[in-house]
Amino acid sequence: MLDENRLFPADSAARSVAAKLYATVRDLPIISPHGHTDPRWFAENEAFPNPTALLIQPDHYIFRMLYSQGVSLESLGIPEADGSQNADPREVWRIFAKNYYLFRGTPTRLWLDYAFQNQFGLTGRLSPGNADAYYDIIAEKLETPEFRPRALFEQFKIEVLSTTDSPLDTLEYHKAIKASGWKGRVLPTFRPDSVIDAEYVGFLENIERLGAITGENIGTFKGYLNALRNRREFFKSMGATATDHGHLTAMTADLDPSTAESLYGRILSGRSVPQEQEIFQAQMLTEMAGMSVEDGLTMQLHPGSIRNHNRKLFERFGRDKGADIPSATEYTRNLRPLLSKYGNDPRLTFILFTLDETSYTRELAPLAGHYPALRLGPPWWFNDSPEGMMRFREQATETAGFYNTVGFNDDTRAFLSIPARHDVARRIDCAFLGRMVAEHRLDEEEAFEVVQDLTVNLVRKAYKL
Amino acid sequence: MLDENRLFPADSAARSVAAKLYATVRDLPIISPHGHTDPRWFAENEAFPNPTALLIQPDHYIFRMLYSQGVSLESLGIPEADGSQNADPREVWRIFAKNYYLFRGTPTRLWLDYAFQNQFGLTGRLSPGNADAYYDIIAEKLETPEFRPRALFEQFKIEVLSTTDSPLDTLEYHKAIKASGWKGRVLPTFRPDSVIDAEYVGFLENIERLGAITGENIGTFKGYLNALRNRREFFKSMGATATDHGHLTAMTADLDPSTAESLYGRILSGRSVPQEQEIFQAQMLTEMAGMSVEDGLTMQLHPGSIRNHNRKLFERFGRDKGADIPSATEYTRNLRPLLSKYGNDPRLTFILFTLDETSYTRELAPLAGHYPALRLGPPWWFNDSPEGMMRFREQATETAGFYNTVGFNDDTRAFLSIPARHDVARRIDCAFLGRMVAEHRLDEEEAFEVVQDLTVNLVRKAYKL
Amino acid sequence: MLDENRLFPADSAARSVAAKLYATVRDLPIISPHGHTDPRWFAENEAFPNPTALLIQPDHYIFRMLYSQGVSLESLGIPEADGSQNADPREVWRIFAKNYYLFRGTPTRLWLDYAFQNQFGLTGRLSPGNADAYYDIIAEKLETPEFRPRALFEQFKIEVLSTTDSPLDTLEYHKAIKASGWKGRVLPTFRPDSVIDAEYVGFLENIERLGAITGENIGTFKGYLNALRNRREFFKSMGATATDHGHLTAMTADLDPSTAESLYGRILSGRSVPQEQEIFQAQMLTEMAGMSVEDGLTMQLHPGSIRNHNRKLFERFGRDKGADIPSATEYTRNLRPLLSKYGNDPRLTFILFTLDETSYTRELAPLAGHYPALRLGPPWWFNDSPEGMMRFREQATETAGFYNTVGFNDDTRAFLSIPARHDVARRIDCAFLGRMVAEHRLDEEEAFEVVQDLTVNLVRKAYKL
Repeated sequence: MLDENRLFPADSAARSVAAKLYATVRDLPIISPHGHTDPRWFAENEAFPNPTALLIQPDHYIFRMLYSQGVSLESLGIPEADGSQNADPREVWRIFAKNYYLFRGTPTRLWLDYAFQNQFGLTGRLSPGNADAYYDIIAEKLETPEFRPRALFEQFKIEVLSTTDSPLDTLEYHKAIKASGWKGRVLPTFRPDSVIDAEYVGFLENIERLGAITGENIGTFKGYLNALRNRREFFKSMGATATDHGHLTAMTADLDPSTAESLYGRILSGRSVPQEQEIFQAQMLTEMAGMSVEDGLTMQLHPGSIRNHNRKLFERFGRDKGADIPSATEYTRNLRPLLSKYGNDPRLTFILFTLDETSYTRELAPLAGHYPALRLGPPWWFNDSPEGMMRFREQATETAGFYNTVGFNDDTRAFLSIPARHDVARRIDCAFLGRMVAEHRLDEEEAFEVVQDLTVNLVRKAYKL
Repeated sequence: MLDENRLFPADSAARSVAAKLYATVRDLPIISPHGHTDPRWFAENEAFPNPTALLIQPDHYIFRMLYSQGVSLESLGIPEADGSQNADPREVWRIFAKNYYLFRGTPTRLWLDYAFQNQFGLTGRLSPGNADAYYDIIAEKLETPEFRPRALFEQFKIEVLSTTDSPLDTLEYHKAIKASGWKGRVLPTFRPDSVIDAEYVGFLENIERLGAITGENIGTFKGYLNALRNRREFFKSMGATATDHGHLTAMTADLDPSTAESLYGRILSGRSVPQEQEIFQAQMLTEMAGMSVEDGLTMQLHPGSIRNHNRKLFERFGRDKGADIPSATEYTRNLRPLLSKYGNDPRLTFILFTLDETSYTRELAPLAGHYPALRLGPPWWFNDSPEGMMRFREQATETAGFYNTVGFNDDTRAFLSIPARHDVARRIDCAFLGRMVAEHRLDEEEAFEVVQDLTVNLVRKAYKL
Repeated sequence: MLDENRLFPADSAARSVAAKLYATVRDLPIISPHGHTDPRWFAENEAFPNPTALLIQPDHYIFRMLYSQGVSLESLGIPEADGSQNADPREVWRIFAKNYYLFRGTPTRLWLDYAFQNQFGLTGRLSPGNADAYYDIIAEKLETPEFRPRALFEQFKIEVLSTTDSPLDTLEYHKAIKASGWKGRVLPTFRPDSVIDAEYVGFLENIERLGAITGENIGTFKGYLNALRNRREFFKSMGATATDHGHLTAMTADLDPSTAESLYGRILSGRSVPQEQEIFQAQMLTEMAGMSVEDGLTMQLHPGSIRNHNRKLFERFGRDKGADIPSATEYTRNLRPLLSKYGNDPRLTFILFTLDETSYTRELAPLAGHYPALRLGPPWWFNDSPEGMMRFREQATETAGFYNTVGFNDDTRAFLSIPARHDVARRIDCAFLGRMVAEHRLDEEEAFEVVQDLTVNLVRKAYKL
């Protein structure tokens, strides 16, 4: 199924350079500094239950497409908010196989075919006719030692894998991994949305727990900030090198201390209005940047997704069910308070992501091409695709250069897609560089250096790995 | 003038696949589910008067370009609001020929050259030197039976052609077509802007007429809605399978019934303010979606055009004179009320269009790649062009796939451009697929299936034809 | 370092056409109707002091990239607001050479390599190893007569070079150039931001000086407008053919005279609020368009840059230090008042620029493809790059055509980059046309005409040169 020249330019001159470049990065280790895999897998190292539970049910890229074409989430065995889940895994697999044509032209198709062929040795395209055979082969392999999480981690040549974790998390699985003596590096990432976003379900209880865990007095803003500092320190002691922030907008603020203190009081009262909550989040981004200056954790911001857009589906199935929809995201004005305060500080590394590609040339590349603290994260989510990655390079490079970017993030909860995703990213970088060389915009010798930087050097530096 | 490989990729590998794909769709019937041709042509089947009246004066793409370079609308014989129109058709044609170079690089040029060569056998590029010869040859042909509207319809292999019609229209020409025994399918489309948009010229009189025609009491919101239901039913009985809505924004609302009722009262009073009119339109989109759930008419939304931007020109020449200018259009927040109510309903097909390409990756593809009711219409108006179509496929496919799109619309009032426009669309789809195959992102065998779907299957399904 | 086919498409068919087209425009004269070179250079014709002062310190593209990667402005010898500047030029050059890899993939790299090779005969890529040799060779050449400003002007085949000047400027250097008998055409451009934008440093003093210089009573709006008319006339007498306006937004207004008069009173009082200042600027754009109708000066508008985004850096180093960041820019609604008043007037030429590429297909091409007065300026600033230029042609041409554009602007204060910048623009136009011909969207014979128009004819016409 997989051609060795896939994703390279059709033009033979550019393709030939791309292929040469790719040969030098194909086998480099995978560095995955941002993602959503479950640390429990590596702590317990149990076999994955079945093909459907491994490949379909955790992957919102897959079930959102099926849903858009009239396949119900129930029939796919997506668990409902009340925990019910009835579909037979093999039946779900058959539905998937029958609808596999829907993924034509999508990155999901590239990722899946890669996993089918390279991890399971399956080479005929998935179809209703071979659905059961696929299922059986995958199920059988999953029971072998080679398909346990740690074995796959090693087989994938993962040098480091970061998870995403709540500040309230005890990181018990990360501890267990460390304690086990296994050498795989699985690092936590500090993601404090649940104690910063007042609209988050259970927000006030979360703050209470934050106080309880840290022994800080969260009744004051200072105590609240100290509690966060405390948890950052704990995460750092567990290997974390980064934080992550998922906000609705990129708004930042730089309030004077007494205003911030009284705003925190309003938030804590539970009677705050949406505008206050927004400013609080804005202020907290700047506070978090200040803490990153102190403790050196690289800061990531992922704004612009309107979560749970489909009300009926959210009520029945809960969050992360493919119904998060992007909206226009402003950076230039919104980031000014934070950047005016910390953007020139060499101790800060602040990585920006976007779901709004219009910001690449207009805002993100000009910002990252100026502020020493700023770097551009790779194309995210809906833009994590061949065309999306190519647009990112075409639109960001001329103003930000290559060296204000940070390599690839797979950002996935689909463990088996990790090698495929990194492979796509490497191929597209090679395709872009291949065209640049073929058009004499970059010397071939330099392209070999750049592709190493894009694959391993920039990510190591930006995430301090 | 026309190379057989036009619009295919320059690269030979991709071109070769594109050409093979195109050979399988070139001669498929034309399905035109959205456009602005005049049903009277097919009812009366009279000869078109002259080349200028057929090819130039109805085509705002042509006269807007000429106007932008200083050619007055008077000199082109564009009728003024008071009905005056003095230019000699042959003189207009000469002006057009003299300025034909202005269309270099535009889709208008592609459409015209196609019609000149394929419909009139003209193969030297139009120029001042051959303007009169062109005029004479076209004029002569227009008098032959082969160039009557019905004969062209058949020669173009049009399987179905939808017009766009006011709810107040008696559809007399559609009736006459049916009554004539001619087998051409010319279907009406229900376009109720004139009775929904309170800024529409004659809006209140239109509502009155709506009541008179249907016998409903338009003094109440319920009666008004019933009147609309009544007309939808009538259109459906005349063969309509779709509605169309041209709003300034994509705003939708889901007001409670009493609020909606009292808002309607304000609108009907003639004293409503612009914000009320906007919310009323927003509410009516949701009402129309509800009626589509009931009666099965596919719903189309074309938002984002600021009509009659050029005040002086509007005062003198009236609407649709090339002075409609797009503006940024938001979908994610605006459509949420409607989609939360009906977006999961399998009975609804809701097709979105845009003049704002920034919404493809950011909003439209994520929405269509999730909601079962949603589909993406083809690139519209200024984006109905080779580059525009290619950007649509490049930007929408990776998230929405091919199967949440609906094939091509020509959307034209220039009847002779229909084959050319569909040909351009087919070629660009083949070019896109050719590149995907050459880059090993899609199997060639699958591309043959996809191109059939893009050309005839998806449009038949979406518009229930 | 420079391949003769650089920037042409990799595909051989398209490349071959591009190369043939380029051969016909490579040696045409340079027409530079908009830029920021210093007229003093040509008046005094002194040698440039050293490589660093010529090539690095005036070029914000260079030092913003270095700054973004942690190189301080002090170490680059960028003068501080208090005038201090301590870095040794050769040391700065070494820092630059060491960091030259940061410019990979950027237009800066293309411009510099061109100057190094074609103007200084340097053919090994700049690196730490040859930094001193580079410095010495350049420094030596700068002392020769061939590298004096006037000699370079002639060697570059500059037909006309426009500077950008304050209305308060006496244009003494322009006078001196004229008086010297040297035949080089160096023309002023009327840029009145400092007397129109009430946020401009020293605004009220500027208005006072405007009154003093012209003898008009700037205490009234009429007197203020007459003072501007007076200075426009003076600029015109000195050879100016254009004005330029750098506003935060594209907002225009058409206030009735008494409202405008009283708004001017508020502005003059020094107590105006930001919203009043914005409306005043909006009104003044329309006034300026009216004056252009009267006096025939071509009008340019460059909106959308948020100046001095980095507060700390601005406080220390002042303006124009690489910290201007674009933001989303609306044209359709904002320009309506001005265009409704003057957009149909054949005496006005109004050239629009943007930093927001999303406006190309959505707003700018539709506007320019309709209004007779409007033309589209070339890709500006961050978009003045190979990819940026290509996107402009791909996105603007299908709706606006080639003939509503105005050729290239180099817009630079880096004198030695002028030939390189025009060369890049010519190559990209040839690349675009080469692809169009290879895809049979334009006849080759026509492409030869178009490329002449894009290189010299359109700019001469739009700027009345």
